Amino acid sequence: MTVKIGVDLGGTNVRVAAFGDGPAPLLVRREPVGAERAPEAVVKRLAALIEEVRDAAGAGGSDVVPVGVGVAAMLRDRAGTVANAPNLAWFDVPFGAMLAHELGTRRPLGVYNDVNALTWGELCFGNGAGAKEVLAVYVGTGIGGGIVCDGRLVEGKSNTAGEIGHTKVRWDDKAVPCNCGGRGCVEAYLGGHRVQERARQELARGAKSMAVQLAGAIENVTPGDVDQAAAAGDEWALGLWTELAPLLGVTLANAIAVLNPELLILGGGMLSRTPVLREHVLAAMTVAATPPSIEPLTVRDAALGDDGGVLGAALLAEGGVSIIPVR
Amino acid sequence: MTVKIGVDLGGTNVRVAAFGDGPAPLLVRREPVGAERAPEAVVKRLAALIEEVRDAAGAGGSDVVPVGVGVAAMLRDRAGTVANAPNLAWFDVPFGAMLAHELGTRRPLGVYNDVNALTWGELCFGNGAGAKEVLAVYVGTGIGGGIVCDGRLVEGKSNTAGEIGHTKVRWDDKAVPCNCGGRGCVEAYLGGHRVQERARQELARGAKSMAVQLAGAIENVTPGDVDQAAAAGDEWALGLWTELAPLLGVTLANAIAVLNPELLILGGGMLSRTPVLREHVLAAMTVAATPPSIEPLTVRDAALGDDGGVLGAALLAEGGVSIIPVR
Repeated sequence: MTVKIGVDLGGTNVRVAAFGDGPAPLLVRREPVGAERAPEAVVKRLAALIEEVRDAAGAGGSDVVPVGVGVAAMLRDRAGTVANAPNLAWFDVPFGAMLAHELGTRRPLGVYNDVNALTWGELCFGNGAGAKEVLAVYVGTGIGGGIVCDGRLVEGKSNTAGEIGHTKVRWDDKAVPCNCGGRGCVEAYLGGHRVQERARQELARGAKSMAVQLAGAIENVTPGDVDQAAAAGDEWALGLWTELAPLLGVTLANAIAVLNPELLILGGGMLSRTPVLREHVLAAMTVAATPPSIEPLTVRDAALGDDGGVLGAALLAEGGVSIIPVR
Repeated sequence: MTVKIGVDLGGTNVRVAAFGDGPAPLLVRREPVGAERAPEAVVKRLAALIEEVRDAAGAGGSDVVPVGVGVAAMLRDRAGTVANAPNLAWFDVPFGAMLAHELGTRRPLGVYNDVNALTWGELCFGNGAGAKEVLAVYVGTGIGGGIVCDGRLVEGKSNTAGEIGHTKVRWDDKAVPCNCGGRGCVEAYLGGHRVQERARQELARGAKSMAVQLAGAIENVTPGDVDQAAAAGDEWALGLWTELAPLLGVTLANAIAVLNPELLILGGGMLSRTPVLREHVLAAMTVAATPPSIEPLTVRDAALGDDGGVLGAALLAEGGVSIIPVR
């Protein structure tokens, strides 16, 4: 059995897992990222966790244990340089080089966008198994995407391929600012955080909706409450979904026109709790899509949940994708 | 020397060329498609032209001469089935199977979208040489795209990848109908035919512009005249370009967010005659793009012109891409 290590570095938690030959982890360590988010400190903790998991998995004596790290960031290259990780407040951080230095030579190490790692996990052991042309879109707090063409992960020139959350759906004066620094990104409208914020604002300003009763109070209303209200025919909730759904539906249709995938995987905490919105989005996608592009498409939910990212990162590193050279 | 045959089947002309090892054709035959556009008739003429060129190139005795056909169509599969070729008035035509039958077994035969063939020609012998992550966008009568990831042409599941002309830039009640049957496609706004039609309509309805003087008469105004007027500060022309440019600029930025290419190749008769519009489009693209996605991007004009498509189709067939199986 070959041991490989997968890491998921998110804005809230860090997870490190060891895998053998199958998709089930041999062991998993999970910790909050915590308050100390300076890159140096995070890298040192991460390296220590990786060593610990490697030793606990019985691979401590092995010289070559692939380590794959998925990070919630826009990368700048194949060497794990983070251009922009708003949740970690990292900008222009040579994360891959720092972690490689900390781990020494006992590795191949690869750093991946977290959604690319999730996508690869689904392709290998989840609902993407057997597919060769895949678009995966995760709608959680933000919106991210992963692309597989001809069975291979598409990373692009500088490792930022798949950033579908930052495709623009408005470009007029009223386009909403996005966390990325741009305006009019689909994430700025349909990212879970934005939807929640907007719903609470509209309700606080006097909109009437049963979502408030479902949540108990305006300040507790979640996108899930809005969706339940919409399911019951609530006028305000349906109005919000009717406004928002085409923005994501058209975004998906446009990516499908460009990529012509056979499989669209939908994942992320937001869409899984908003089935009515999901239906509206898929209806809008079908209307906006060019028929020959969408004819071969199947839509499936992600099967692996968040664990898919740790697994996918480990598998990418094991497969030799974007391995950081040892200096 | 290995001989290969390239074909370009457009809405106006058909071109058949034989190539040796380099990019310069050994010989070229070019004919109007003519009035008789029934698939059976076109296929018979095409097969006869291919045989003729093969014999004239001295490869008549060879059993294996790769034949690649680029067609101005949306395809439905890797077997050359045409879903939709508005310029030929073909819908659901098993073109590849018909041509394969007519050619017999003395071939490998591949059928490609014409813009995919152009893109491949640029990659092998044009301004894409050396690049591995490429987006090519051709703005002529219509708008088409080609994608290369990791050095390989992206065809998608059913061979319609790259249909960037049919990504949507409007999806409200006022979205303009497109020739594809959809509404709000970028081609319906910036395809050369539409721009010309719209310019003449606005001028006929009383808009004042020096484009009319440049063209001699309203019914002769072309996008090139509008561009020359815009270059001279003509208010109406600048207004039209200011309205249209962001639609294509955002389309390009969104495809760049998805694909993260190193190279954007711009081609097609419309953009080459509208340098002011081209500048406006690239400015809008830069504003709309997410910085890490566009950082590595270089923009170049297509180098090969229309001949690139014949060459690219021949090279794709020679390379074994989407070869139609012999039954």
